[in-house]
Amino acid sequence: MERHFDEQLATLKHQLIKMSALAEIMIGDAVRALVERDPQALVGLDAREEQVNRFQVDIDEACLTLIALHQPAAGDLRFILGAAKTNSDLERLADQAINIADKTRRLIIQPALKPLVLIPRMADIARGMVTDSLHAFVNRDVFLARAVLLRDDQVDALKAEVTAEMLRLMTADPAIIERAMGLILIARNLERIGDHATNIAENTIFVVEGRDVRHQGDGHKV
Amino acid sequence: MERHFDEQLATLKHQLIKMSALAEIMIGDAVRALVERDPQALVGLDAREEQVNRFQVDIDEACLTLIALHQPAAGDLRFILGAAKTNSDLERLADQAINIADKTRRLIIQPALKPLVLIPRMADIARGMVTDSLHAFVNRDVFLARAVLLRDDQVDALKAEVTAEMLRLMTADPAIIERAMGLILIARNLERIGDHATNIAENTIFVVEGRDVRHQGDGHKV
Repeated sequence: MERHFDEQLATLKHQLIKMSALAEIMIGDAVRALVERDPQALVGLDAREEQVNRFQVDIDEACLTLIALHQPAAGDLRFILGAAKTNSDLERLADQAINIADKTRRLIIQPALKPLVLIPRMADIARGMVTDSLHAFVNRDVFLARAVLLRDDQVDALKAEVTAEMLRLMTADPAIIERAMGLILIARNLERIGDHATNIAENTIFVVEGRDVRHQGDGHKV
Repeated sequence: MERHFDEQLATLKHQLIKMSALAEIMIGDAVRALVERDPQALVGLDAREEQVNRFQVDIDEACLTLIALHQPAAGDLRFILGAAKTNSDLERLADQAINIADKTRRLIIQPALKPLVLIPRMADIARGMVTDSLHAFVNRDVFLARAVLLRDDQVDALKAEVTAEMLRLMTADPAIIERAMGLILIARNLERIGDHATNIAENTIFVVEGRDVRHQGDGHKV
């Protein structure tokens, strides 16, 4: 029995929302482990990543099925193509949580450099961008999508601040170079999460307005 | 007059190949500017990036048109979805060339740390991965795609080698921390190019074998 198109589309949106919720928990846990120096926060990470990976496979198949069975109209077709792209961005931003966790495990068995302020702030903004970009996408909300794009500059500015601070610290004391480098790279992982949320927000505008905002005032991320 | 499906599909493949050729030139030029300390090598970069961005928009539209006009069979539909994903990967790996160029401009006005050997080697492998992953994709060549996957480990190993060497140098002489950091980050940009080529190779296997290899023996990239 073939299910109705609208019902399958609702399921697809629901899957994307659940996948993004998992990714956000992963990011939150990875950064909490770092800030609180608590390896226990990482316990559920691998299982959640497996769930994210299963979602990725299922969502691609759902997109293919929706198109093959229902030959959707232009607007819906654009949405489904956007969903397949958003799916990839979600999987990759979840991978960044794993990368943060890998570095965190090495960092928290060494003495702390200093209390972390900027990195948890970056993480909060990046997670908020993920939530909002997903809600913008599934609700085709261009206004919310544009708000996400604006916040990416905050993440980039905080990353620059972390990098400058760490360069100062490591120049003053070469003994801490490796730890300071770890924090610089974690800031870059968070920046990449912001970039993926930005991609999802851009997908939203591409879907809704039927035009491409991805290359207007192009700002590159390192 | 609606063109024939096969002809439009051939055009799509041709666009992807041209886009990847542009991206490879961009990577080559950015790394040549760094290695030869020659800012002239960067002259054509921005124009090529604009071309890449135009290709990205055109290829997404071509994918939508192909599906909407021809309601392709399951295998072709999978290919077109894979093409849309490959399109995103190509655009993002071209962005990495811009990121390398940005850092190169700052690095080459300062004294050289040492002759660069590992970074150009990484760049050669990464560019070869881009070429081969694209040819694997358009020719649905799983054998070539798998060869690309294997080479990603070489890129990752070279990145680790560059990072270790730079950490040693900067620990010995904090005055060079900023330059050494620049090279570490360029090695990471090259690693990300290898990651995108890996994604394209995985798309190929997903298209041809109708199953997902993306999460078998998952190795995370930082």
